[in-house]
Amino acid sequence: MASDRLISSNELGRHNAADNIWIAVNGVIYDVTDFAPTHPGGLRVILDNAGKDASRAYDEVHSPSIIINSLGAEKRVGILDQSTVIRAPEQVIQQSVSPKGEKPPLSTFINSYDFEKVASKTLSKKAWAFYSAGATDLITRDDNKKAFDRIGFRPRILRDVTTVSTETKLLGCDSSIPLFIAPVGMAKLAHPDGEKAFAKGAAKAGIIPCISTAASYSASEIVGFAPLNHPFFFQLYVDKNRAKSERLLREVGELGMRAIFVTVDAPVPGKREADERLHVDESLSSPISGVKAINDSKGGGIARVMGSFIDPGLSWTDIAWLRSCTNLPIVIKGIQTAEDARLALEHGVDGIVVSNHGGRSLDTSPAAIMVLLELQRRCPEVFKSMEVFLDGGIRRGTDVIKALCLGAKGVAVGRPFLYALTYGSDGIERLTEILKDEIETTLRLLGVTSLSQLHPGLLNTRDVDHLIPANYQESEAPSLQPKRGVAKKEIAKL
Amino acid sequence: MASDRLISSNELGRHNAADNIWIAVNGVIYDVTDFAPTHPGGLRVILDNAGKDASRAYDEVHSPSIIINSLGAEKRVGILDQSTVIRAPEQVIQQSVSPKGEKPPLSTFINSYDFEKVASKTLSKKAWAFYSAGATDLITRDDNKKAFDRIGFRPRILRDVTTVSTETKLLGCDSSIPLFIAPVGMAKLAHPDGEKAFAKGAAKAGIIPCISTAASYSASEIVGFAPLNHPFFFQLYVDKNRAKSERLLREVGELGMRAIFVTVDAPVPGKREADERLHVDESLSSPISGVKAINDSKGGGIARVMGSFIDPGLSWTDIAWLRSCTNLPIVIKGIQTAEDARLALEHGVDGIVVSNHGGRSLDTSPAAIMVLLELQRRCPEVFKSMEVFLDGGIRRGTDVIKALCLGAKGVAVGRPFLYALTYGSDGIERLTEILKDEIETTLRLLGVTSLSQLHPGLLNTRDVDHLIPANYQESEAPSLQPKRGVAKKEIAKL
Amino acid sequence: MASDRLISSNELGRHNAADNIWIAVNGVIYDVTDFAPTHPGGLRVILDNAGKDASRAYDEVHSPSIIINSLGAEKRVGILDQSTVIRAPEQVIQQSVSPKGEKPPLSTFINSYDFEKVASKTLSKKAWAFYSAGATDLITRDDNKKAFDRIGFRPRILRDVTTVSTETKLLGCDSSIPLFIAPVGMAKLAHPDGEKAFAKGAAKAGIIPCISTAASYSASEIVGFAPLNHPFFFQLYVDKNRAKSERLLREVGELGMRAIFVTVDAPVPGKREADERLHVDESLSSPISGVKAINDSKGGGIARVMGSFIDPGLSWTDIAWLRSCTNLPIVIKGIQTAEDARLALEHGVDGIVVSNHGGRSLDTSPAAIMVLLELQRRCPEVFKSMEVFLDGGIRRGTDVIKALCLGAKGVAVGRPFLYALTYGSDGIERLTEILKDEIETTLRLLGVTSLSQLHPGLLNTRDVDHLIPANYQESEAPSLQPKRGVAKKEIAKL
Amino acid sequence: MASDRLISSNELGRHNAADNIWIAVNGVIYDVTDFAPTHPGGLRVILDNAGKDASRAYDEVHSPSIIINSLGAEKRVGILDQSTVIRAPEQVIQQSVSPKGEKPPLSTFINSYDFEKVASKTLSKKAWAFYSAGATDLITRDDNKKAFDRIGFRPRILRDVTTVSTETKLLGCDSSIPLFIAPVGMAKLAHPDGEKAFAKGAAKAGIIPCISTAASYSASEIVGFAPLNHPFFFQLYVDKNRAKSERLLREVGELGMRAIFVTVDAPVPGKREADERLHVDESLSSPISGVKAINDSKGGGIARVMGSFIDPGLSWTDIAWLRSCTNLPIVIKGIQTAEDARLALEHGVDGIVVSNHGGRSLDTSPAAIMVLLELQRRCPEVFKSMEVFLDGGIRRGTDVIKALCLGAKGVAVGRPFLYALTYGSDGIERLTEILKDEIETTLRLLGVTSLSQLHPGLLNTRDVDHLIPANYQESEAPSLQPKRGVAKKEIAKL
Repeated sequence: MASDRLISSNELGRHNAADNIWIAVNGVIYDVTDFAPTHPGGLRVILDNAGKDASRAYDEVHSPSIIINSLGAEKRVGILDQSTVIRAPEQVIQQSVSPKGEKPPLSTFINSYDFEKVASKTLSKKAWAFYSAGATDLITRDDNKKAFDRIGFRPRILRDVTTVSTETKLLGCDSSIPLFIAPVGMAKLAHPDGEKAFAKGAAKAGIIPCISTAASYSASEIVGFAPLNHPFFFQLYVDKNRAKSERLLREVGELGMRAIFVTVDAPVPGKREADERLHVDESLSSPISGVKAINDSKGGGIARVMGSFIDPGLSWTDIAWLRSCTNLPIVIKGIQTAEDARLALEHGVDGIVVSNHGGRSLDTSPAAIMVLLELQRRCPEVFKSMEVFLDGGIRRGTDVIKALCLGAKGVAVGRPFLYALTYGSDGIERLTEILKDEIETTLRLLGVTSLSQLHPGLLNTRDVDHLIPANYQESEAPSLQPKRGVAKKEIAKL
Repeated sequence: MASDRLISSNELGRHNAADNIWIAVNGVIYDVTDFAPTHPGGLRVILDNAGKDASRAYDEVHSPSIIINSLGAEKRVGILDQSTVIRAPEQVIQQSVSPKGEKPPLSTFINSYDFEKVASKTLSKKAWAFYSAGATDLITRDDNKKAFDRIGFRPRILRDVTTVSTETKLLGCDSSIPLFIAPVGMAKLAHPDGEKAFAKGAAKAGIIPCISTAASYSASEIVGFAPLNHPFFFQLYVDKNRAKSERLLREVGELGMRAIFVTVDAPVPGKREADERLHVDESLSSPISGVKAINDSKGGGIARVMGSFIDPGLSWTDIAWLRSCTNLPIVIKGIQTAEDARLALEHGVDGIVVSNHGGRSLDTSPAAIMVLLELQRRCPEVFKSMEVFLDGGIRRGTDVIKALCLGAKGVAVGRPFLYALTYGSDGIERLTEILKDEIETTLRLLGVTSLSQLHPGLLNTRDVDHLIPANYQESEAPSLQPKRGVAKKEIAKL
Repeated sequence: MASDRLISSNELGRHNAADNIWIAVNGVIYDVTDFAPTHPGGLRVILDNAGKDASRAYDEVHSPSIIINSLGAEKRVGILDQSTVIRAPEQVIQQSVSPKGEKPPLSTFINSYDFEKVASKTLSKKAWAFYSAGATDLITRDDNKKAFDRIGFRPRILRDVTTVSTETKLLGCDSSIPLFIAPVGMAKLAHPDGEKAFAKGAAKAGIIPCISTAASYSASEIVGFAPLNHPFFFQLYVDKNRAKSERLLREVGELGMRAIFVTVDAPVPGKREADERLHVDESLSSPISGVKAINDSKGGGIARVMGSFIDPGLSWTDIAWLRSCTNLPIVIKGIQTAEDARLALEHGVDGIVVSNHGGRSLDTSPAAIMVLLELQRRCPEVFKSMEVFLDGGIRRGTDVIKALCLGAKGVAVGRPFLYALTYGSDGIERLTEILKDEIETTLRLLGVTSLSQLHPGLLNTRDVDHLIPANYQESEAPSLQPKRGVAKKEIAKL
Repeated sequence: MASDRLISSNELGRHNAADNIWIAVNGVIYDVTDFAPTHPGGLRVILDNAGKDASRAYDEVHSPSIIINSLGAEKRVGILDQSTVIRAPEQVIQQSVSPKGEKPPLSTFINSYDFEKVASKTLSKKAWAFYSAGATDLITRDDNKKAFDRIGFRPRILRDVTTVSTETKLLGCDSSIPLFIAPVGMAKLAHPDGEKAFAKGAAKAGIIPCISTAASYSASEIVGFAPLNHPFFFQLYVDKNRAKSERLLREVGELGMRAIFVTVDAPVPGKREADERLHVDESLSSPISGVKAINDSKGGGIARVMGSFIDPGLSWTDIAWLRSCTNLPIVIKGIQTAEDARLALEHGVDGIVVSNHGGRSLDTSPAAIMVLLELQRRCPEVFKSMEVFLDGGIRRGTDVIKALCLGAKGVAVGRPFLYALTYGSDGIERLTEILKDEIETTLRLLGVTSLSQLHPGLLNTRDVDHLIPANYQESEAPSLQPKRGVAKKEIAKL
């Protein structure tokens, strides 16, 4: 296992003898003791840099991947603790992407994983950690995808599938395929154009971007990169200062946004350890929320240090307040139980997103597609009166179709579009094209020709059916723990 | 993980300095920076070839496996993008097989995996990709085999098993064992004799080959390599130009074929990524369908680029048309649900093949043996009126017997025979001999002496029984998604 | 796999030629034949030490991890059999921890695994083996943790979680979080301050230490390191000489301990093989039990060789005797079945600890959290009349909350605090701070604000529900084995 | 993966140039091209042996494990095809064990796996293959052990376990622990004393050996190595020449054997591929059956080539014949279904062994402990009238106790005793001592003091309960396959 231990500049300095050489290259510290004698460029140049940050010397002559290929992961000793280094400010963050020439041409990409692989190598360490991280042990993050693979298709044959259509309407807006770009923060870390490239690429591809409160550009800047009338959604984190949120809702309404997605599954940020372990660049700030990044005793987790404005006191009673602030459709993002789906229905919202924040909030929460299945089994009525969406784990056209078979009107895709963004708006277009092709192929091989023909009978969910929780009688709970003195009013709130 | 990234000739050329050396050997690009100083033949010869295609220099002195053994998979940087290379035409494709001397003698082979291992090393990269590839994430391809291993035997003891018989009749034709050679395309990529070697070897071994519409020789050429009256089946892809298919059916009828297998699980080709990533040799063409290969924006997948003639509009109503074109038994190949097995029965066909196209069509479709189990549980009546076959995942004699215990009359075996074909007709004979021996041993150790004594009680399917889907009430489907405005006539077609 | 074979000094001595070089470094024997020619310090110094214990020469110039990094685990030949070595007594044990400078600063630690990783590298081999070992094949040890990961959360949204409280009372004593430090033996092997550092750190962090009968300091020494009135629990192994136990109970009562935890899941020690394979330092002794360590024919397992005083004859009838010896609350530690939980209730004890001794007693016993679930299903009445605790596998704040959702009043955490002890009392404080933060985040993301609101409906246990054993009718047992001549009175005792 | 490809002497000879060097050492061929330039003994000596069998040169200076340690498994190219080599006869087989000095002392062994590890390194390749091999894909062989690990204990606490007894009677004979040595063939391949060491060690340890028809010494030679009256069992393979079996039964009766175990799960040998791939030494012969070894077109599998005398026609009707030949108790070895256990009961035998021949007969047959569980559930009456034994997968004392909890009177242990035999009779004693200690510890930690107190309620089998097959109505079978024309009389035989 490659080590992520934080190592101080002082400790690095002590490994500077021929039998004990560490060097730092682009933020990572390696043990090159064994490698040094066989270094093609000579032992001398390595000894000159022993115990030091050798990034500059290294970059002049080597491509980034050489060091990893040559040494192997086990020689990675840890991460240089940036807070212990004295240096010129322009070195604080690595370039977010490698020079274009290092990346394979878009025409060679044939699935979403191709984008992920390239992003893992070309994004800065910090951007990769921020985007790819999940909460603590990554169980929910990874289950989001794995659960799709445990649900099988039941393909029907000898249907005429000469022409198929993947078009649909999401909250009344046309979409070329049943998915939209999930709201993601700080897209600029992937590409200088950030969310502006989302807007441009999505408009060309006929899909809808959902702009995040944590976007790296203002909503008006972003919208300008798509043709007039191209639909946008807006994702809202409610501010502790409610007046700010009220003003924001007015603004995005005036910009012509078509729906408000209120995120409710992160009243406080989950513990995303890979992100916390790397120091955040304190010059980072969010133009919409106005918050600036800061490193603290828990680490440098971007979502955490920049989410300080989010109100952990938001509750069901606030739905009425939201209604009073906007005429747009309101969608609750972060439903994880049938109980809460029913509450959303009772509160009269226009839609819900089954989501666990991409596995970034509470680890061991259920995979998103499992929650959708729970809704199908325990509260199918919610599909009749609200549009139901899903995000979390979508990587293939087959995943999209599975969600639709279980009642989703569409899905949101986050990380894959962030990874595609390393190619700017061209990446967004290419990824959409690939997903559309996969969706079309899936429909044809299932024996259907339009999204309206999808239904649960085209799936085999038997491998996971037993995992759906039964209705829990909440009134039973207190009797199990009488010593704790649960006050009646507390129970009533559950 | 060995990389499959496509790399241009230009990019290769930039890695030509002593501290950064890539070379291409037989289409694969390696990073030899670390290896070069220790090269037994000297550093100089490597530097002379740095950033270049070194295949010729390499092949003169090295055997093919040396480079992989010496460097390790992690030094494989990617695949040379053949479209970016200027060179003499005779270098376009590698030889499909290595010189005979490199391969182990047939007498040392004792199971079907032995053939697979040799094929993976001696076939051209493209042929290997085409034959071994499955759809997208390979889940169904691999489940085809794994599902057999989850079904156990219940061996009975103290039966007299002195003499056993493995003989049977498939669609009225004698077969020495209950399996036939599955229809596979472009067998010439494995051996110059292609399907002709199938014919010769199968005849000697007493089994039936099923000739594919995508064969690399014409049906009449192939049939000539077996004795008169040796039975053949013919696999049909229905052409968009129905007149062509009508003519073809007439022709194969006149050649004495004994049954027509109509493939219905690939109205469009599945997404076989390993195959798409390698450029196809555009001189490839199919003598039966008349289609020629071409590379396009999706890649070079052989099945896809050569399947353009297949009619995605084929439907149940066309069974009557097929009946009008031939007097031969008609078998529907590609059944994946009990519902469609019942439809096949209603349409009066003579047989069905439970198949998912070897995991090449829609990924996460059920393993073939699981569909057979579904038929046993949900529509056992189909076994009474049709012959039921299975293909997908057969590697052992035990697999064959498990399918027969669940009601199959016989099975089709594809990839293993393609891999055996690297030894020409001798390979076909040897593999059949091995499978026959395994089948005999299995019968004896089960305590039975003929195929007719097999029944479900000899198996323990408890590990997978819960995965069989229940009957789905299709009438319920529309009510779940009322917003989509499903037209009544569309539902009616489901 | 790194080898643990015991190798004699004589055998080591035979590997002393240039083509066959073994050396011992800090108790481990390595094959350095291949490495020697490339040794940066020269081949000569290695040849001088060939076949010998080279620890001293090595330590003068190398840091401990270099040898492992340079050679790889496969070069580890085995363990030097200390009993075959003639040497000065001060070399008998390695220093229990590396010089402080080698360890990362506490401020970089963000979860309990960080402590485990550092401990695995800096503890002496023997201390690591003693602390980390489980019984035989480690199945129960590892299941303790894995079972938590198979139980999911069902997070509720849109609750006001602005303020949360993690405080509780355990057996009437205040605790800042619902956990206490599990009783662990010989803590001095991790840090010179041993249990005294537990006392100091726990007092600062507001949690309760449970002192073990096998502690490396006397109870009065330990208690002195916390402020007056800070609560302590005491763990009792009942001595074969009951008078000794009676005296001990009087003493700890006078010291102000608040409860007695009687360990009952280790009437004899489990077989902890990693610990047995290393010789124990025979100067080790326990100030409370008075036993001294000794190596014997089974090996050097600390728990075994020092547990010789424990009475395997302790039985339910002894509960009355215990009651007569102390006025403190009595808690039975080691419940593994619903049947025994009910017996504990009938015997009127004040609490129980669901525990399998951290997987150190009988391998393939159920994971602790599974036993808690069994109690919920089969004898929920026990939660009404006793405080129920759990230990085994707690590594995350999420684990703590899962146990509480299933009815536990609190949990005990053992190994993680031992690993944190490598940093003395500061480590105890830091680990508690981390766990408290994880517990708070978990509560908020579940949508609750105090421990009293937790209940089983916040969990999804469907993945493991089927593993809960049904009530077994013990009267049926004898009829199955009539030939064994089970005497009626024996059956009656079951 | 290390390769097992058979390579001819000719092919080996072609790899004799500096950039392409293979050598054979003790029957295995390695690629040493990369290693040669760094060989401590110089490149020259390697070049002198390039393309040749270098065993003699190697053995003079190296210990056996050096080559594997130095090169790594991936450099193993294959196996030298002994049939293609011209050489002096004394080189045909390697020594069956390494010189004693290479093996760790018995006092360092603490579990059965320690013996397995040493045997895997010190046995000849052929002996290791013969002993360790299972049928085809090794699924059943490995499940035999894994199934034990899926069955958990339910330990009971606060029982007085001061004294425990592990003694029992097996078929009326005293045994110090509830296990006997399974009949195994050709033990001489593990140690020159072969089965004689079994007799000597077992007698000292107080356990019973079961002598195999395929033993490498005659029964009278073996019996002589134990004190008079020490009990022995005898395993019978019925000869096609029944007169021979009759004579053998008379002989072993006269030698005082105490029971006859008739093996019925291998009417023909399973396909044990590791064994088939290595040529058998044709000087091997069995003194009891009189058969001599021979290599044939299927390979050199010892059990197969030496089992040619076994009668595949043995059937239930022969039980009466067996009864007429001996007065000893008759035990049927190889029961794998509840149906056959009932048949055994009906035929009045004295005992049965639940066994799948150690996973060597039909792969994917059920794990032995699963069959025992099936008997508990579906025909518990068999335990009342016969003694039930189990073999397959026993490696731990916990495994033994689990089998007894499910009704077994005792278990048979095969491979572990073969591996212990590398230390002669001392190894047998030491292994028995270890197993006895594990059994005692297990009893105490379960809270019981004698074998008679064991019952199913001490186990948790919920993880595997669903795998037990239901009663199959055999009368339903034929209706599923009407086309096969099953004759009534054939069905009647099932």
